[in-house]
Amino acid sequence: MSGAVQTGKLLGVGVGPGDPELVTFKAMRALANADVVAHFAKAGSPSHSRTIAARYLRAGVTELPLPYPVTTELPKCSNGYRDALRDFYDGAAADIAAHLEAGRIVAVICEGDPLFYGSYMHLHARLAPRFPTEIIAGVTGMSGCWSLAATPIAQGDDVFTVLPATLPEGELARRLADADAAVVMKVGRHLPKLRRALDRSGRLHRAIYVERGTMADEKMIPLTAKSDDEAPYFAVVLVPGWEERP
Amino acid sequence: MSGAVQTGKLLGVGVGPGDPELVTFKAMRALANADVVAHFAKAGSPSHSRTIAARYLRAGVTELPLPYPVTTELPKCSNGYRDALRDFYDGAAADIAAHLEAGRIVAVICEGDPLFYGSYMHLHARLAPRFPTEIIAGVTGMSGCWSLAATPIAQGDDVFTVLPATLPEGELARRLADADAAVVMKVGRHLPKLRRALDRSGRLHRAIYVERGTMADEKMIPLTAKSDDEAPYFAVVLVPGWEERP
Repeated sequence: MSGAVQTGKLLGVGVGPGDPELVTFKAMRALANADVVAHFAKAGSPSHSRTIAARYLRAGVTELPLPYPVTTELPKCSNGYRDALRDFYDGAAADIAAHLEAGRIVAVICEGDPLFYGSYMHLHARLAPRFPTEIIAGVTGMSGCWSLAATPIAQGDDVFTVLPATLPEGELARRLADADAAVVMKVGRHLPKLRRALDRSGRLHRAIYVERGTMADEKMIPLTAKSDDEAPYFAVVLVPGWEERP
Repeated sequence: MSGAVQTGKLLGVGVGPGDPELVTFKAMRALANADVVAHFAKAGSPSHSRTIAARYLRAGVTELPLPYPVTTELPKCSNGYRDALRDFYDGAAADIAAHLEAGRIVAVICEGDPLFYGSYMHLHARLAPRFPTEIIAGVTGMSGCWSLAATPIAQGDDVFTVLPATLPEGELARRLADADAAVVMKVGRHLPKLRRALDRSGRLHRAIYVERGTMADEKMIPLTAKSDDEAPYFAVVLVPGWEERP
């Protein structure tokens, strides 16, 4: 601990899509200098972000695990879900604030990039107005996925879009047809609907299914070659653009 | 040089948005092991990607500069522009192919991420079918920009889109209104039109103007506070989403 004589600082540290080699020097130095390292995890599971960052943690550093109270697969519209998550983020922010008030540097490890579809933002919204804060950008999960596929995703004047597979089928089809390139996230149980939306939008032949890009157990297959509809929540489907290649 | 006994390999190496500290360990190792390091640059200007990667280059490594024949600000629809670029990429690919055929490892340094709106893809499309190829994902320029702004860009079920400012005003306005969050690229001389499109789509109050996120001369200002319409080609405008924060 660096003690209470200095001002505390909150760091949102992106550690990339999964391969510890895709951590940046800036993230490594931030983790090495932090007094406290916080990481989200599904209840009962090891923290993915901590697993990615493990080799960069200082021996004996204070760790602050933040286990989600409920699964993120529950419908967002449920009041119980929202209340439980709000209480959880309030509590996590209070725990971190106590360290910051004591003058400590708290690094929150974030899979991918801290400000792009990540849980860190819930802490940022609560703490950045009160404490010095710095964001360390990371390689996004979707970059990890299209790099594994070695497929150019967007180029030139392409319109690129990121869509949650939770959208209704017609809405998915409309938005897929309206973009040159797309990444569909949160595939999970929505895969049959997503297949229909890709077909309706004329994008099915281009679609690539990816799980855990850059992780040890990564999977990648053209969606039309995938014979089942089993997909985890974090699977993505890539729709590469750049149709007008010179 | 590692000589002609091994098979050559093409590496697309993302080096991030500008800060050399945002280079990954994987990129650093790829650059240290490469026989040849290639980098794009505007004619008459130092290569941005080489500047970012300079500290990671092996002393005495063979460098292959690839100076663009024309400015990328020219209209894409011009035939002369397209022909000149096609010839340029054909020639660059041939130069790299000669090294690969001699069994060398050629690393192409890419600002941001190699497969996301970058010139490397033109080489990839020409060479990946013929030679072993690996992509090393990088932190995108847009991640660098929203990290500098310390502004959550997209969360939960947000629809996020990337738009070129080259689109017509009505098209920009329609697409901005249709997305929760957006990044508009290639702002340059399109800034007055983009302001109007942001206003029409109800997004102007949220818009943040950013130049060179994470570089030494970075600039960031709410667009409504920017009093002039001067903007370089590579400036971006961020429209953060995540309106429904818990």
